[in-house]
Amino acid sequence: MSHNPHDQTWKQLTDHLGEWVTESKKHTTDGHVASYIPELANAPAEILGICIMDASGSIAAAGDSNFRFTLQSISKVFTLILALMDNGEAAVFSKVGMEPTGDDFNSMLKLELVEPGIPFNPLINAGAIAISSLIAGKDSTEQIARILTFFREIADNPSLEINAAVYKSESDTAHRNRSLAYFLKDNGVLDCEVDDVLRTYFSHCSIEVDCTDLARMALVLAHNGVDPIRHQRLIPRRFVQIAKTFMFTCGMYNASGEFAMNVGLPAKSGVSGSILSMVPGQYGIGVVSPPLNRKGNSTAGVHLLGKLSQEFDWSLF
Amino acid sequence: MSHNPHDQTWKQLTDHLGEWVTESKKHTTDGHVASYIPELANAPAEILGICIMDASGSIAAAGDSNFRFTLQSISKVFTLILALMDNGEAAVFSKVGMEPTGDDFNSMLKLELVEPGIPFNPLINAGAIAISSLIAGKDSTEQIARILTFFREIADNPSLEINAAVYKSESDTAHRNRSLAYFLKDNGVLDCEVDDVLRTYFSHCSIEVDCTDLARMALVLAHNGVDPIRHQRLIPRRFVQIAKTFMFTCGMYNASGEFAMNVGLPAKSGVSGSILSMVPGQYGIGVVSPPLNRKGNSTAGVHLLGKLSQEFDWSLF
Amino acid sequence: MSHNPHDQTWKQLTDHLGEWVTESKKHTTDGHVASYIPELANAPAEILGICIMDASGSIAAAGDSNFRFTLQSISKVFTLILALMDNGEAAVFSKVGMEPTGDDFNSMLKLELVEPGIPFNPLINAGAIAISSLIAGKDSTEQIARILTFFREIADNPSLEINAAVYKSESDTAHRNRSLAYFLKDNGVLDCEVDDVLRTYFSHCSIEVDCTDLARMALVLAHNGVDPIRHQRLIPRRFVQIAKTFMFTCGMYNASGEFAMNVGLPAKSGVSGSILSMVPGQYGIGVVSPPLNRKGNSTAGVHLLGKLSQEFDWSLF
Amino acid sequence: MSHNPHDQTWKQLTDHLGEWVTESKKHTTDGHVASYIPELANAPAEILGICIMDASGSIAAAGDSNFRFTLQSISKVFTLILALMDNGEAAVFSKVGMEPTGDDFNSMLKLELVEPGIPFNPLINAGAIAISSLIAGKDSTEQIARILTFFREIADNPSLEINAAVYKSESDTAHRNRSLAYFLKDNGVLDCEVDDVLRTYFSHCSIEVDCTDLARMALVLAHNGVDPIRHQRLIPRRFVQIAKTFMFTCGMYNASGEFAMNVGLPAKSGVSGSILSMVPGQYGIGVVSPPLNRKGNSTAGVHLLGKLSQEFDWSLF
Repeated sequence: MSHNPHDQTWKQLTDHLGEWVTESKKHTTDGHVASYIPELANAPAEILGICIMDASGSIAAAGDSNFRFTLQSISKVFTLILALMDNGEAAVFSKVGMEPTGDDFNSMLKLELVEPGIPFNPLINAGAIAISSLIAGKDSTEQIARILTFFREIADNPSLEINAAVYKSESDTAHRNRSLAYFLKDNGVLDCEVDDVLRTYFSHCSIEVDCTDLARMALVLAHNGVDPIRHQRLIPRRFVQIAKTFMFTCGMYNASGEFAMNVGLPAKSGVSGSILSMVPGQYGIGVVSPPLNRKGNSTAGVHLLGKLSQEFDWSLF
Repeated sequence: MSHNPHDQTWKQLTDHLGEWVTESKKHTTDGHVASYIPELANAPAEILGICIMDASGSIAAAGDSNFRFTLQSISKVFTLILALMDNGEAAVFSKVGMEPTGDDFNSMLKLELVEPGIPFNPLINAGAIAISSLIAGKDSTEQIARILTFFREIADNPSLEINAAVYKSESDTAHRNRSLAYFLKDNGVLDCEVDDVLRTYFSHCSIEVDCTDLARMALVLAHNGVDPIRHQRLIPRRFVQIAKTFMFTCGMYNASGEFAMNVGLPAKSGVSGSILSMVPGQYGIGVVSPPLNRKGNSTAGVHLLGKLSQEFDWSLF
Repeated sequence: MSHNPHDQTWKQLTDHLGEWVTESKKHTTDGHVASYIPELANAPAEILGICIMDASGSIAAAGDSNFRFTLQSISKVFTLILALMDNGEAAVFSKVGMEPTGDDFNSMLKLELVEPGIPFNPLINAGAIAISSLIAGKDSTEQIARILTFFREIADNPSLEINAAVYKSESDTAHRNRSLAYFLKDNGVLDCEVDDVLRTYFSHCSIEVDCTDLARMALVLAHNGVDPIRHQRLIPRRFVQIAKTFMFTCGMYNASGEFAMNVGLPAKSGVSGSILSMVPGQYGIGVVSPPLNRKGNSTAGVHLLGKLSQEFDWSLF
Repeated sequence: MSHNPHDQTWKQLTDHLGEWVTESKKHTTDGHVASYIPELANAPAEILGICIMDASGSIAAAGDSNFRFTLQSISKVFTLILALMDNGEAAVFSKVGMEPTGDDFNSMLKLELVEPGIPFNPLINAGAIAISSLIAGKDSTEQIARILTFFREIADNPSLEINAAVYKSESDTAHRNRSLAYFLKDNGVLDCEVDDVLRTYFSHCSIEVDCTDLARMALVLAHNGVDPIRHQRLIPRRFVQIAKTFMFTCGMYNASGEFAMNVGLPAKSGVSGSILSMVPGQYGIGVVSPPLNRKGNSTAGVHLLGKLSQEFDWSLF
């Protein structure tokens, strides 16, 4: 099968991806598997998998690309989109801001200091919790069902499920997120009960996927909301634009600036060591490698994406 | 009955207290009754009552001295003492610090920024919640019973009870305190469940008293832990010393420095508009007037204590 | 003259730019001319000018496009590039970070709180001052001469000069910048004298230009460092990449996220009410309108760029 | 000579002071001599001296009580008093606040965050710099002369002088203080030039004394502004009250709460390792031992004062 006009890139990708994975895998030893959620701590430290999908659905994969993991913060991108679809821009941005922040992802600092007391953006924990509360549904059960339906559609995978063990582990140890949620409740950002919104939040964080699912979901964003395989618009273009902008400015926690400089692609990482990225107009990319650097991003994953971006000149700037 | 060597002061006090109350009452219009706990918002705004008790139990009272209110933050002084009696200094100060802070009483700012992440002192909300968790007892029911017994003994009033309506109101609207408690839990400061410690915390905040009770409790502190009426040591002197030091440096929220400068007595205020103060070695003082200034202290109450301190040269410095 | 393949866009631009300027000009009344530098306060409030330049040097201009103003913070983009050319990436990023921050442009907050105490990025004032200190030259006189030479080359305008009145006004009222600089000196970020680095900093902020100069300078960035008119590489591509990434993530002060979402182009604004922007691969853009919004960006300028971006679908995402 | 009614205390003091000094001297190894001002770094690390003076001028001294050092932050107490004498309470407290703060002595954090942007209190660096600017005098030369005259009078020692080497060393390395001063200037707290106020500030910090001078100065404060030896009022009582209150709540940097709890006396420390303290109504105390703990207070000095306070039950509470 021919991949015009990406034939050459694609050939290079499939020819060399294995060796680049081998090279980047060395960097797993620079990081540490997230330990604050006990279930995540069980992830093997030497894993590195990647899947790249083009507009025809062809796949270049290497390493542990069948390894299964939970979406964690990557889910925030798609709940943001769903909240935008359910409520429109104005309603969403009355509850969360649009600005990057150099603080830790779970910081309360800015919430306390900054008027009007809404989270800085929808990708930090406080913002993502506010977003979860905006998903349509009469209770968290309906919201979770709705999220799962939406994620399955984007991933074109009806078998996506919540990992119950991870969900339970997150829920049991979520003191900081509970603290954030009550802070938001006190500030008038949340209309619902804290327990409800956290049930929704932990549920979407605990959806289990593999690199192919990530690449498939990213592919839809790379094509501005149209699934290029089924030729179907799944998301209004404006909401993909919003999502990609946030991924570029604050998708990699407080190393987003560094990633933008060195990789230059919209991306979102999760503490499971996963990264969803894309080459706009072309590929969807899913990567996973559990050991994280100090900023919470996969060490080997970031290295591998940097290598690919340089090799193929993928940086947006 | 003669009040040697305080006869003259006492006479002046009883002669003039009424007119000073009338004068200070004008300042009730400078403040606003606390509204964030709905039950407190019902307090009448024109109230001002005071009770001063000497070592023989004689009372000088004026204004609405029979008005009943809840202890709120004043209770923190006595739970600190009880926690010290139950655990000793070393254990208590491994969970809370000793330093005043210029921040709002419910700020999380310092908790996030300062190592090792324990509350700055036992009189800010975060610190007082940590202290509540240290009261002996196998659960919050036992802790609350123990606190009530202790407070009744200090007040020499077996009929002290928790105001159920205020308790419920606090508990229902306590998002910020819940946020603080989960933050402490995440930092490893709390060993127990958040719901338990908050039950204990809201219970002691909701104990209902009048100015005579406050004056009686303050009298024991004024006499370094010995009840001068029943001639009985109720609290080890060192723990009273600790409590009075904290009252002087951080008893009036982030207006403690101003109060120390202008009144110069150990004191603790509560958002019910109450202030417990004392003239060391001599009098216990209880004041109440619901309207609060911007810093959370009773406007008329602070004015009245300032007047008395100047009149009788009570400032410690 | 034909503008293939941008003929149609260009025709629309030249046909409609005047009416869009008229429309956006209404928004000058939403802002306030910067007053903290006395000389800037003299700028007329009803000005709005724009110049767009294509790769052939053709110009679409409207409104007060001949109005002259100083570069202010826009100069930071080009001193960053010059510092990179003089020192390389590693040396530059040992003195400034790469992360956006939600704080005010002149905040010290993050400098005090964050290890290792270097400015968050080169576009906030603290970062730009650090960058000024890295320009090659044995003293500020040499540094300023070198900067002026470089800016003249990029702008292809040998007559660019420092506006002495603005320089003096900035220097006389620069208490906050002096405070930042001494803070950096104390943190070991500055090797030179504070007075020297500020002389350099205020000098490049005070370089006087018009919208055509801005568009010309932007054109070189839009073409990755090659001047498409003189067909000459002026800046290594990597350094343009770095500059454009920073412009996208933190070029519009703490409204950079909002601008990225609503306009979607790399841009840098200055308190003179100026904005330098570009359509990558195509146009250089210069806009000026002195009244600023609360975040420090030109109200009418931001409105006009938003209009153009929507009209021509220029957003990068 | 008889010391009624302090005969017994005095005898114990003179009998045992030497052994207590020997005991406390061991704690010099727990600290580090201040190194950020090069001249201070030269101080010998094994020094511990103390002088206690009673109302008759009798002296109990031990250890290196003849060691000479500069006042550093201790001078802030007396410039505050002088500023109050020169301007009155209202003017002084329009420029500095009255509240303790848990932040480092040279922090800018609170200055940036808190309205109305004045320093929290007159004993942190920012506050003391503001106070220096309020001393009467047409320029810093006059202000310095006036301060020196006042300090000599309080110390009853016409030979007090500024240590020129320390002054120069402070002035040369004072980037952080310069940063604070420009920040204050920008906030409108300082009316004069930064260079002038810092000249005044560094000058009073560099006044050289020994423990006897400290004890003599403290004696005047202990007697509410009246010199009990010359039977002369030197300071209005209210201003001494203000000074002692600040010493109690924020005299020992951000270990003031701990010192109040464990020693319980008004005190002020300096980075030269010196502490001025007093027993109100009785003694003036001067201590010096250069090695400092993490909070900036003399390790051996704090230990010795704690020992004395416990031995003689000097705590105010």
